Amino acid sequence: MGKVGIIMGSDSDLPVMKAAAEILEEFNIEYELTVVSAHRTVDRMYEYAKTAEEKGIDVIIAGAGGAAHLPGMVAAITNLPVIGVPVKSSKLNGLDSLLSIVQMPGGVPVATVAINGAKNAGILSAKIIGIKDENIRKKIKLYSENMKKEVEEKAKRLENIGFKEYLK
Amino acid sequence: MGKVGIIMGSDSDLPVMKAAAEILEEFNIEYELTVVSAHRTVDRMYEYAKTAEEKGIDVIIAGAGGAAHLPGMVAAITNLPVIGVPVKSSKLNGLDSLLSIVQMPGGVPVATVAINGAKNAGILSAKIIGIKDENIRKKIKLYSENMKKEVEEKAKRLENIGFKEYLK
Amino acid sequence: MGKVGIIMGSDSDLPVMKAAAEILEEFNIEYELTVVSAHRTVDRMYEYAKTAEEKGIDVIIAGAGGAAHLPGMVAAITNLPVIGVPVKSSKLNGLDSLLSIVQMPGGVPVATVAINGAKNAGILSAKIIGIKDENIRKKIKLYSENMKKEVEEKAKRLENIGFKEYLK
Amino acid sequence: MGKVGIIMGSDSDLPVMKAAAEILEEFNIEYELTVVSAHRTVDRMYEYAKTAEEKGIDVIIAGAGGAAHLPGMVAAITNLPVIGVPVKSSKLNGLDSLLSIVQMPGGVPVATVAINGAKNAGILSAKIIGIKDENIRKKIKLYSENMKKEVEEKAKRLENIGFKEYLK
Amino acid sequence: MGKVGIIMGSDSDLPVMKAAAEILEEFNIEYELTVVSAHRTVDRMYEYAKTAEEKGIDVIIAGAGGAAHLPGMVAAITNLPVIGVPVKSSKLNGLDSLLSIVQMPGGVPVATVAINGAKNAGILSAKIIGIKDENIRKKIKLYSENMKKEVEEKAKRLENIGFKEYLK
Amino acid sequence: MGKVGIIMGSDSDLPVMKAAAEILEEFNIEYELTVVSAHRTVDRMYEYAKTAEEKGIDVIIAGAGGAAHLPGMVAAITNLPVIGVPVKSSKLNGLDSLLSIVQMPGGVPVATVAINGAKNAGILSAKIIGIKDENIRKKIKLYSENMKKEVEEKAKRLENIGFKEYLK
Amino acid sequence: MGKVGIIMGSDSDLPVMKAAAEILEEFNIEYELTVVSAHRTVDRMYEYAKTAEEKGIDVIIAGAGGAAHLPGMVAAITNLPVIGVPVKSSKLNGLDSLLSIVQMPGGVPVATVAINGAKNAGILSAKIIGIKDENIRKKIKLYSENMKKEVEEKAKRLENIGFKEYLK
Amino acid sequence: MGKVGIIMGSDSDLPVMKAAAEILEEFNIEYELTVVSAHRTVDRMYEYAKTAEEKGIDVIIAGAGGAAHLPGMVAAITNLPVIGVPVKSSKLNGLDSLLSIVQMPGGVPVATVAINGAKNAGILSAKIIGIKDENIRKKIKLYSENMKKEVEEKAKRLENIGFKEYLK
Repeated sequence: MGKVGIIMGSDSDLPVMKAAAEILEEFNIEYELTVVSAHRTVDRMYEYAKTAEEKGIDVIIAGAGGAAHLPGMVAAITNLPVIGVPVKSSKLNGLDSLLSIVQMPGGVPVATVAINGAKNAGILSAKIIGIKDENIRKKIKLYSENMKKEVEEKAKRLENIGFKEYLK
Repeated sequence: MGKVGIIMGSDSDLPVMKAAAEILEEFNIEYELTVVSAHRTVDRMYEYAKTAEEKGIDVIIAGAGGAAHLPGMVAAITNLPVIGVPVKSSKLNGLDSLLSIVQMPGGVPVATVAINGAKNAGILSAKIIGIKDENIRKKIKLYSENMKKEVEEKAKRLENIGFKEYLK
Repeated sequence: MGKVGIIMGSDSDLPVMKAAAEILEEFNIEYELTVVSAHRTVDRMYEYAKTAEEKGIDVIIAGAGGAAHLPGMVAAITNLPVIGVPVKSSKLNGLDSLLSIVQMPGGVPVATVAINGAKNAGILSAKIIGIKDENIRKKIKLYSENMKKEVEEKAKRLENIGFKEYLK
Repeated sequence: MGKVGIIMGSDSDLPVMKAAAEILEEFNIEYELTVVSAHRTVDRMYEYAKTAEEKGIDVIIAGAGGAAHLPGMVAAITNLPVIGVPVKSSKLNGLDSLLSIVQMPGGVPVATVAINGAKNAGILSAKIIGIKDENIRKKIKLYSENMKKEVEEKAKRLENIGFKEYLK
Repeated sequence: MGKVGIIMGSDSDLPVMKAAAEILEEFNIEYELTVVSAHRTVDRMYEYAKTAEEKGIDVIIAGAGGAAHLPGMVAAITNLPVIGVPVKSSKLNGLDSLLSIVQMPGGVPVATVAINGAKNAGILSAKIIGIKDENIRKKIKLYSENMKKEVEEKAKRLENIGFKEYLK
Repeated sequence: MGKVGIIMGSDSDLPVMKAAAEILEEFNIEYELTVVSAHRTVDRMYEYAKTAEEKGIDVIIAGAGGAAHLPGMVAAITNLPVIGVPVKSSKLNGLDSLLSIVQMPGGVPVATVAINGAKNAGILSAKIIGIKDENIRKKIKLYSENMKKEVEEKAKRLENIGFKEYLK
Repeated sequence: MGKVGIIMGSDSDLPVMKAAAEILEEFNIEYELTVVSAHRTVDRMYEYAKTAEEKGIDVIIAGAGGAAHLPGMVAAITNLPVIGVPVKSSKLNGLDSLLSIVQMPGGVPVATVAINGAKNAGILSAKIIGIKDENIRKKIKLYSENMKKEVEEKAKRLENIGFKEYLK
Repeated sequence: MGKVGIIMGSDSDLPVMKAAAEILEEFNIEYELTVVSAHRTVDRMYEYAKTAEEKGIDVIIAGAGGAAHLPGMVAAITNLPVIGVPVKSSKLNGLDSLLSIVQMPGGVPVATVAINGAKNAGILSAKIIGIKDENIRKKIKLYSENMKKEVEEKAKRLENIGFKEYLK
């Protein structure tokens, strides 16, 4: 119950975007992942966005870099919530990707996460699906608690052995 | 079915943030709106985020400016999806607000919209609720079609009368 | 011989974009001007870009602001040269518009001009048409000479009367 | 039919700028490529820009970095369309190059492409020549279709084998 | 007499933040150092800030990166002076960290130092404690004099042997 | 007990910097306020910084704009903690002021607050003096509680009358 | 003895650039002022730069905005020192002007002053002429002393009457 | 006849700043080079700036990074022309250094060159000395001609052998 579509503008975005898939696997949420380029495969992008809803997808995660139009264009076509991941560009550190994705005009929102924040895009999609699936919500709760524990354990270890030992 | 919590760091953000409420009224989605400051009312913020879920809220929209910590802190406490609205600051044009909200660390996403994008935050919350409410989804579809028509009518008028007449 | 299509994402861009039309009128180059939104009228945008060539258009000028996707999307669909005009946004001074338009990925160029540079977009389209139309090329030559004369006359006047008088 | 002049401010720009030449070879478009510095060889730059038209050049591609004046100065002298390539600088990531090239004053446009976007400069020059050469236009169409196919094949492979296998 | 609390959002900040501890050791000022995440361990952060004063801490140094909320949130809870260290992020060079920490709203200041300026945070905390501890103040004076001498010796050596020899 | 020196580079900074004095009056903390220019009155600046300690000053607040050297130079001369206020410039929105003040080299920290954050500079100086003066610490506590109450009252009013009424 | 040439890209720069002339009048240094556009009057620019030396000019002050090429091009042609004044643009606050002027390649320096810093350009030209004219050097000394006195008098007045009275 | 003082804030700036010395050696202009820190050796800085003129120095070149106060402070003390070299910082790519140096207030100019532009600082100092020394002026002329020749030779070689061979 609940399915996420993960797309990216180029397979060169995959090393960044795979983190969204990995976290969804951890949450046991169904997803499909593929490459859809807004600029190189316009028809495919249109088709993807147009049919996502009827394919049972609940949330779309779209990652792109530079003049990143994929998340915004998909959001313009579908009525599903779209999460945008600005992929860090080699030129302007991802500022171009971020602004191209987040600064959408009134009427067509993209839920933008941090530069290279694919993992967070995955978690956000889970939180969204969680509004209709008690089960997922519990998993998120658990995930947060584990994060907390992990930090607390590191903190305890650091306090015990001191930073010099810790950094060795 | 479906409820949105709209909060902002200061009542000076209200002229921007009211657009979220207005669009939700248009969609007939229940919402509550108030001021919650992460810095001036920490306990209130904590309480708000902690109890939002049990109060039946599905999505939280949080707007703040400058070193905008409200959306991220709320997202750290609740398991609900949180939408962040960077409110334009008078100093750095909202770049500080945007980066403070969007650049969240792994594990705690904030669905960030454009600077002053409160209307889009409202639409995004509707799209999120739409994943469990067919009725809302239809309203979004209708809203998009109306937007489209509005543009097409303006375009037709512009084509007919020419830009000189149009700008008079 | 030679025709330019001028489009913009919103009629609020018209006060900026009209400068492209005005300069084309000065050059006596045929143009058509309308509103085409990449986000609000995706089908119209697709249709416009797809049919521009067969309608006899040689160059497309596309202006947009914020997360400005119109020029890039049109460039992805048509084989005609596309000139992008970043329209100054009220939030980030047009830096978002500029980066969203100019930072296109390999394979899909947009000929980007300055922020709010609609007049230059018009001149650039004339220069492009000039490569097949000797007549237009002459007009550009003349235009440049007139610009030159205008500056020289101002310079002469300034030298003659001095800056205090000149600024009165 | 149709010829492109490729120039750059320094031979250190060649590793970036060669991509313009390579794509023109792919399109079978005639080009000449050389070094012309606006700052170190002013007379040569003036001469180049002044005589380009009579040498049969249709479009000039000019690449430069830092306070990049070459594209703008050449555009000020010739009546041909000039494409500017901002070469990434080691100091400010190419933001200086980009702004120095794109922010031209009214009357003297430079068709700016992305930072290090020499390949796109080549494609844009082809699109420009395409407005008078049906043959080139067909090649661009073919090129776009090949790009599309390439993405589709990668997408299919990714869908088939999954991202873990794909990234090995 | 005088104690500093050093906290950081993640143990990955430790290689930067340890410089604060090292300089405090040099000044012989008591400190405690641990990991406290505003986003992953909200309760722990709240507890830490709430109890710091009664634990005898005089100044808190808080380092964080990206959407860095730790220093501001701690400053919102405690009445002690809080020094914020923007940790350089891998995406935006620390500009996001800096703006997230320094641009605090009226009422809740954070004493911000340079990006990665943990050493200076340590010195600043010593200067602050120095306002009630003559002894620390003397150590700072000595420290400054040593810095001065070190520069003077390098200068003398450079003047004597020349830059070519010096750089060998 | 406890005294603050407030200085600024020019009397044109006074409308911004007076907020530091006003909050100190509210806290009943002694202060002196004057103009000291690092660039126009070097000797005066040197003298001020050199003698501040013996004049009984505990903390120095220094505001300046553009290439803002006053806070850093004063911090280089005195052993007292120095708080820097970046005054918003008319050219670059205060980014130049901010970077000139905060990016100090190792050894010479400036406790930087937000652009135009003079009020926060005042509060920070109070927090610093609070580490040796229980009385001041109580006032800060009270001040924070009042801030909290003020927000809560606004929130209550907003919740009661709704945003439309509130904005009238 | 000593003469300054003041040029600007457009007469719209005159309200900013006149400050250079005014300060030179104060120093009694001969100057000539005119409009020279690098983009609109290339030949005039070339001629101006080529003949400045033989006309007895010692220093050239060149102001321009946006993609500001005038200072750099003139510096490329003349062997005289060239001072560049970045004129604030209406789009990017003068950042484009600044980077276009200051980021010159090796071999061709431009002595860049602050955005809109025409007055400082005038003073800098005086300081340069001062290296061969004892008389000018004395005037600069005097000017600095007067600046100092002016600040000191303002400071004294502020200290005497307090900031509330001062701001009335 | 003519002497240049080269100073830098830290010996870590030497690998950048040595380029100023090297070009002065090429021009056979006398120079002295040392380390002077505005923040760590205030008295030394003051002394250096105060006595430079009487030691026969004509121009001072000052390089510094981050919150770079050295050039501006020296310019505030001496009446000689001061050239500022923004040294690239590891955090913000030198933007902080650049703004800290160039954005000087009215009355105290610094002749700023490009980030890491020490070589150009050397050439600029030579151009300045050239206004009183015909001999230096000739050397600059020669230097420019050699630069030109070098570019022309590279261009010729590139044209002859083609870019593929050239890049081998």
